[in-house]
Amino acid sequence: MTAAQELTAVPDQSGVDAAVAAARRVVASLLRAGGGSAVEMAQVAAQLNAVADHLDEHAPAMDQRMVDMWAGEGVTRHDPVTGPENAIAPPLNLTGVDDGTVEGEVVLGLPYQGPPGHVHGGISALILDHTLGVANHWAGASGMTAELTLRYRRPTPLFEPLTITGEQVEVDGRKIRTRGAITAAGEACVSAEGLFIAKHLPRPR
Amino acid sequence: MTAAQELTAVPDQSGVDAAVAAARRVVASLLRAGGGSAVEMAQVAAQLNAVADHLDEHAPAMDQRMVDMWAGEGVTRHDPVTGPENAIAPPLNLTGVDDGTVEGEVVLGLPYQGPPGHVHGGISALILDHTLGVANHWAGASGMTAELTLRYRRPTPLFEPLTITGEQVEVDGRKIRTRGAITAAGEACVSAEGLFIAKHLPRPR
Repeated sequence: MTAAQELTAVPDQSGVDAAVAAARRVVASLLRAGGGSAVEMAQVAAQLNAVADHLDEHAPAMDQRMVDMWAGEGVTRHDPVTGPENAIAPPLNLTGVDDGTVEGEVVLGLPYQGPPGHVHGGISALILDHTLGVANHWAGASGMTAELTLRYRRPTPLFEPLTITGEQVEVDGRKIRTRGAITAAGEACVSAEGLFIAKHLPRPR
Repeated sequence: MTAAQELTAVPDQSGVDAAVAAARRVVASLLRAGGGSAVEMAQVAAQLNAVADHLDEHAPAMDQRMVDMWAGEGVTRHDPVTGPENAIAPPLNLTGVDDGTVEGEVVLGLPYQGPPGHVHGGISALILDHTLGVANHWAGASGMTAELTLRYRRPTPLFEPLTITGEQVEVDGRKIRTRGAITAAGEACVSAEGLFIAKHLPRPR
């Protein structure tokens, strides 16, 4: 019997995942440096634009790329919360456990800042919406978000380990109710309740 | 009389903003290329890590950087929705208009994808949470999100112009109620209602 199962793609240490991890560093380092640093930013811009140009020149046709994105494990590789191919994603790794919950731990840095030194409320919403969706997959009945309510109980700290949890509460016909929370040092910072409808948009083929 | 006012930082075409714009391109191009492209990703990773290393070596002290971030116009330069210094931000530019609403237009690409070809529900939540906050600033009474409810009415398309709106509805003592929406081609995709409490975390000094 498996006590826990990875529900999100585990980043490779090579290939596109390593390039994306480096891009994630660039995003954070640009914010960390800011406009007042001694770095010649025009040179940085030129280097980064050259990388983007090179990638664009070798990209597959858009239709094909969309099919590949949505095939097999691809589904968890590119989203903005857990995706190892998406530099916007922290990324969060979520595990399904036997009691039906999903959970993960993440530390968020400057790109995710809202109030000074704390996580943006909308970033908490993004993480929880996604986690509720993964909890639905883990429970076996999933769908699209119809309604999501976030309650902000205390500011969520940057630079500290956050525990993210989600669990499906009820399935009533096509309506699915799911909840989740972000806690820091054992204290609930944000909680979420979601209503999902059991339907999915078609995957590109 | 001013009919409209920019409420978010206007990106410069040079300096750190240009470097961040290029980083935004890299994030999108990595997703666009994916793991199956002919690009030598180890080389891309090395180039991007070298950029991050260079930026980190020249970054100011963290305490000083936090003070700078939160001084004057800095406040709207680094957030993950409108910030020209944050490559996670699309960025969205919001304008305050005389009737008390704020509005902006944005096109979202692959980094913001949830369902196939559509915007991630959590990204819509992120954008609306932030827009409601800006609407509160524009109305003159602002605070921190206490509760946020999103209603998803139809899938929000990627790659098409989205109109983002927000307006303060009511101020009752320290309680502020605000609403907003994302529309595409005149149709409401997501609407939001927020309850904010008139308090702010201290700025670093």
